[in-house]
Amino acid sequence: MSLLVVGSLGIDTIETPFGRVENVLGGSATYIAVAASYFVTPVRLVGVVGGDFKKEYFDFLESREIDVDGVQIVKEGKTFRWGGRYQYDLNARDTLFTELNVFEHFDPVIPEEFKKTKYVCLGNIDPVLQRRVLEQIDKPRLVVGDTMNFWIKGKNADLRQTLKLLDVLVVNDAEARQLTNEPNLIKAAKAIMKMGPRIVIVKKGEHGAMLVTEGTIFSAPAYPLENINDPTGAGDAFAGGFIGWIARMDDISEECLKRAVIHGSTLASFCVERFSLERFKELSYLEILDRFREFRELSKFDEEIPV
Amino acid sequence: MSLLVVGSLGIDTIETPFGRVENVLGGSATYIAVAASYFVTPVRLVGVVGGDFKKEYFDFLESREIDVDGVQIVKEGKTFRWGGRYQYDLNARDTLFTELNVFEHFDPVIPEEFKKTKYVCLGNIDPVLQRRVLEQIDKPRLVVGDTMNFWIKGKNADLRQTLKLLDVLVVNDAEARQLTNEPNLIKAAKAIMKMGPRIVIVKKGEHGAMLVTEGTIFSAPAYPLENINDPTGAGDAFAGGFIGWIARMDDISEECLKRAVIHGSTLASFCVERFSLERFKELSYLEILDRFREFRELSKFDEEIPV
Repeated sequence: MSLLVVGSLGIDTIETPFGRVENVLGGSATYIAVAASYFVTPVRLVGVVGGDFKKEYFDFLESREIDVDGVQIVKEGKTFRWGGRYQYDLNARDTLFTELNVFEHFDPVIPEEFKKTKYVCLGNIDPVLQRRVLEQIDKPRLVVGDTMNFWIKGKNADLRQTLKLLDVLVVNDAEARQLTNEPNLIKAAKAIMKMGPRIVIVKKGEHGAMLVTEGTIFSAPAYPLENINDPTGAGDAFAGGFIGWIARMDDISEECLKRAVIHGSTLASFCVERFSLERFKELSYLEILDRFREFRELSKFDEEIPV
Repeated sequence: MSLLVVGSLGIDTIETPFGRVENVLGGSATYIAVAASYFVTPVRLVGVVGGDFKKEYFDFLESREIDVDGVQIVKEGKTFRWGGRYQYDLNARDTLFTELNVFEHFDPVIPEEFKKTKYVCLGNIDPVLQRRVLEQIDKPRLVVGDTMNFWIKGKNADLRQTLKLLDVLVVNDAEARQLTNEPNLIKAAKAIMKMGPRIVIVKKGEHGAMLVTEGTIFSAPAYPLENINDPTGAGDAFAGGFIGWIARMDDISEECLKRAVIHGSTLASFCVERFSLERFKELSYLEILDRFREFRELSKFDEEIPV
C-alpha cells in the first residue's frame, strides 16, 4: 500500500547527558519515513535538502527502500540545520540554533506518480505547507499530521485551517493542552476532535501514548527503557510506525489503530536507544515483533476476578 | 483476612478550581482504610484524633465496617488539620497550613488483638513511627508503606531504616526520583529495591501507575476521567485498594499484585470524582467491578499480528 511522507530533512547537532553528535542525519520526515519503512515499501518521501546533504544519507534512505525522487536538491543551498541540548532528565530540551536554509523557500511539489497515494503523513512543518501538500493529493484514505508549539502560537489561524483536513492529529501532551487551553488531556483530545481530526493521539513520552476516537480511548504504555541516549525523533518515529502499520494493513478499524499505536511506540522506543537514526541502521523486523509482544505483557492482567 | 492500617486521621480544608470545602474528613489512614474496606472487613485502623473529631466521621468509618478500636481519642486535643490549594491543572498543590495537633505526640500503640495481623499498610507518617508500628506486629505476611518528600528530605536516615522493613513501597514519580536522585523511573524503582522493598509501585497521577518487582514490570493506565474535583487522597485510596485486594485474596503472586494495582487505580479514580471521601459514601462494589473491567478495555489490543 502506498504511503507519502512530507516534512523536513535536516542535519542535527545534539547534546544529551550521554554524549554529543555533530552534523548527523535528522528531520521529521526522515524519522517518519525510516520508521514506516519497516512496514511499507517504498515510502514516498518529499522534502528539500541542500548540496551539503551527504551521499551517505541518501544511501541510507535508499537502503531502507525509501523513494527519494520527491526530495528536491538545491545544490547551491544548505540543508536545514537544528541544534538542541537535552537536560539531565531528558524531558526538557533547549534549542541551541535553527537554520532554515533551503527550507525557508520550500514549496512542496508532489511528483505526478505520488499524487494517488492512499496514506499521507505530514511531518511537523508550516501548516500552510501541509495544506499545500494535501491540495495536490487525490483523495487520500487517511491523513496523519503533526504540529508543534511554534505553529500553535505563531500560525494558529493557518493551523486551524489545516486541522480541518486531517484525519489524525499526533501531538504531545503539552501541545494538546496548548492548542485547546484545557489541562485535562481527555477533554483536550475531545476539543481537538471538534477542530477537525476524528482521531487524536497524545504522545506522553515516558508515560506512553493515548489514542482517542469517537468510540474509544486506548492507553498504550511506554516501553520501560533504562538507557535512553537521545530522545530526538522519538515522536516522528512514533508517527512513522503508526502510519506505516496502518498502510501495511490497509485497515483503519479501531482494532488496527490500537495495534498501530503499539507499533508507533515500538519504533519510538528503538529510536531513542542511540543518537540520530543510528539504531535503525541495525534494527531488524524480528526485533520489532519481539518488542511488540513485550508491550502486550507490560499491560496484561488477568481480567477474571473472583467475587 | 486481616488488614491493619496505621496513619493520620485528619480534618481538611481543600480548594480546587472546582470548589472549596472546609473541615472535612481527611487523613492518609482514613482514605486507605475506606478504600480497602471494599475488599476486606473489618479493616483495623490505628491513629489518633482530638475531641473535635466528629461523631459523624466515626459513624461513616463504622458504616464501612472499619474497626476503630485502635484510634486513640485525645479529648482535650485537636485533630490533625491540613489545608491545601490545587492549581488549575490539578497536578500541583500548595499546602496552606499543617497543624499537627494531637499528631505531634502520637505514639502508635497496637491493640493486643491487632498484633497478629497478616497484612499491614503504613500511611504516610514519620518513618520512626512506621518502624514503631512494625516492632509491635507479629510476623506480617506483607507490609506496604508510603512516604513523602517531607520525610525523604527531613528524615532520610530514619526513612532508610524503615525501608529495610517494607515489602512494598508506594510512592509517586517525583518521590521516587527524589529518593534515588535518578531521573529514569525504571532505574529509580530498581534503586529503591536495593534499599529494601522487593516491590515498588510508582504512582504517576494522570499517567497511571507502574509496578516493578524482581521479575516483572507492569504498566497500569489511569482511568480517563474528564471531571476530577479533588485529587486529595487519591494516592492513599490507591494504596488501600491495592492492599485491600491482596488481603482479600490472601495472595501475593505477581498476577495478584497486577490485579491489585488495577484495583488501587480503580479506587483512586472514584476518590477524585468528589471532594474529601464523599464518593465513598455512595460507591457500590458493583461499580468497582465495572470499572475494573473498563480498565481492561483501556489497554487491550489484539496481540496477533500478521507477518
